[in-house]
Amino acid sequence: MTPHSLPSAAGDDRIRVTYRLTADEATARAMAEDICIEQTVEFPPDLLPTGDIRDRIVGRVESLRPVDQGAFEATISYSTITLGDELPQLLNVLFGNISIKHGIRVQSLEFPASVYQIFRGPRFGREGLRHLLGVWDRPLLATALKPMGLSPKELAQAAYQFAVGGIDIIKDDHGLADQSPAPFRERVGRCQEAVMKANSLTGGRSLYVPSVSAPSDRILERAMFACEAGAGGLLICPGLTGFDAVRQLASEYRIALPLLIHPSFLGSFVTNPTGGISHYALFGQLTRLAGGDAVIFPNYGGRFSFSRSECLEIVEGTSVGMGVIKPIFPAPGGGMSLARVPEMVATYGREVILLIGGDLHRPGPNLAENARRFVDSVRCLQ
Amino acid sequence: MTPHSLPSAAGDDRIRVTYRLTADEATARAMAEDICIEQTVEFPPDLLPTGDIRDRIVGRVESLRPVDQGAFEATISYSTITLGDELPQLLNVLFGNISIKHGIRVQSLEFPASVYQIFRGPRFGREGLRHLLGVWDRPLLATALKPMGLSPKELAQAAYQFAVGGIDIIKDDHGLADQSPAPFRERVGRCQEAVMKANSLTGGRSLYVPSVSAPSDRILERAMFACEAGAGGLLICPGLTGFDAVRQLASEYRIALPLLIHPSFLGSFVTNPTGGISHYALFGQLTRLAGGDAVIFPNYGGRFSFSRSECLEIVEGTSVGMGVIKPIFPAPGGGMSLARVPEMVATYGREVILLIGGDLHRPGPNLAENARRFVDSVRCLQ
Repeated sequence: MTPHSLPSAAGDDRIRVTYRLTADEATARAMAEDICIEQTVEFPPDLLPTGDIRDRIVGRVESLRPVDQGAFEATISYSTITLGDELPQLLNVLFGNISIKHGIRVQSLEFPASVYQIFRGPRFGREGLRHLLGVWDRPLLATALKPMGLSPKELAQAAYQFAVGGIDIIKDDHGLADQSPAPFRERVGRCQEAVMKANSLTGGRSLYVPSVSAPSDRILERAMFACEAGAGGLLICPGLTGFDAVRQLASEYRIALPLLIHPSFLGSFVTNPTGGISHYALFGQLTRLAGGDAVIFPNYGGRFSFSRSECLEIVEGTSVGMGVIKPIFPAPGGGMSLARVPEMVATYGREVILLIGGDLHRPGPNLAENARRFVDSVRCLQ
Repeated sequence: MTPHSLPSAAGDDRIRVTYRLTADEATARAMAEDICIEQTVEFPPDLLPTGDIRDRIVGRVESLRPVDQGAFEATISYSTITLGDELPQLLNVLFGNISIKHGIRVQSLEFPASVYQIFRGPRFGREGLRHLLGVWDRPLLATALKPMGLSPKELAQAAYQFAVGGIDIIKDDHGLADQSPAPFRERVGRCQEAVMKANSLTGGRSLYVPSVSAPSDRILERAMFACEAGAGGLLICPGLTGFDAVRQLASEYRIALPLLIHPSFLGSFVTNPTGGISHYALFGQLTRLAGGDAVIFPNYGGRFSFSRSECLEIVEGTSVGMGVIKPIFPAPGGGMSLARVPEMVATYGREVILLIGGDLHRPGPNLAENARRFVDSVRCLQ
């Protein structure tokens, strides 16, 4: 194998990834060196030729520091050449093979400006979404159309009532795909019509957001259908579709809709504290880079596993400086109730989408009335 | 919300998922009941209307049994109506939201025949791949073109030598995407040409297998390009692209190529023993259902984390009875060496693809000679 010169590409900048390594210092140092190889050339170090590949393709340990008992943080930089301007390969460099090793967790990411010229992030972000809704002075309110098994007509009735009651964002439950009880096209047509009807009655601007976590070769088709039907956004689960489907929708010129990101199937990345990817990097930074405008995650104290500090980590990731990439909305949900609204507002402040799903059915069968209670409970806190 | 009748669809069969629940018995029972709701209607149980939704959409606990100290296995069945005939939604039902809860691991899957009419699995499987190669009496041998940073010409030189030496499957390293040192089209063109030239010299049938873990909207285009160039298979990482991209490639009529599945970015699903998805279900059953013809995984005792018994679990998942879905090849690799060939053959037998990557460069710069050593080391064991 003859060493050769790499193209001296413009944009031979470096991305920086900070990993938490659960190990003693000597082991952590060896792990860091190993990551540099594993995530790039994947080649026995002693057999690597000297020259450009060793100097520029292999990752570089920028720092290693103790964080707490038995753990170190290593910052490793990679040349942007390794990414090839593509999101799947970016994920591969960050955490591909080392996802299979123990004791390595991606903590945070830092990209050079050149990466933000390739991945433009969300189209709307917080400000754009507020602009669409015309709501500037309070948290946004969201709910989900459910349960699976209802007909399009029944889901549309619920959507109508939620919109009449003033909910900003009315999304499909993420488990609504194209099942026989409520096929995608009929559901989207009816629900969108219902929300428009309600908007014309109230003068409001509620958005209906259908779920498009479809088979690979159907995502764009469903998104286009939703867009043409007048839908107000799209819900997608990158755990099911791959993160690049989000990037594709966010950059597709024919679809100018905000994207709500749902965490389905992503839990294994965050629930093991010594492995995976941090809440901050996964739900904050990577979701933004891919192009989500809001990220749904399970609120602490609900029926899921996240702690309050993990939720606040996500909030931080949604707005931390990332070049030209817009801040996006955190959208805590998952077993939330009307009773917890004051606490959620106290925790998250105004820059949040509050998501209450099934519990919005609890006060009684008049969903418009229940929705109004939700709206009022937030308004009275402002 | 008015209960209504669900369509009495043909194929209202049930899939059965066995979960390992790390909990005491009372908690495990409650967790199982919760999974039935969470993975389907995601609705407060006390607010669910009686009737079809409760009876047919909500999952059903079929059994709960102790497996060992502090753990239970629950088998839960779901109506195929919930799947809507789509792989992303199938993954969502199996493990979507509950991936975010603690103490739940998918152990094994059981599908009714109707599911195998929708998901046809691999096109080739073990027998089809052997037929392509004309090799019936020994393990198949594979290697990877690397390191990243080499030019297409250099990679093609290596491919040529490996093919001359008799390696059956010569794949791109999974980190080769479309980076500037070796752009996809030039790399695939040159490497395929090199392998064909070697085949015409040796009379062999080595297959070149390029990597197509591309952006969502480019996967098909790259696969088509590779197919038209005459490539012998496609390498794809469902952790990066989503599992449905595998299904799409396996069922696309214009691409009749075997698919090698790489585990990049999937490690977090298996490395936490009390969460995620078992090696058996993820690398065996789900990979097969999606349409992989061979599944690459890190061999025990290499530089990764899998144990011998986890590797053998994968082997079992690649061939366990799954209706009409063909058995596929396990392909252990990851830091494997020539010295370990006898042990690998003793462990895996004949129905395996042995994958040696970087270490095939170790004996010296003559890669054809190194490849011959690999081939001979396997032949002499038969």
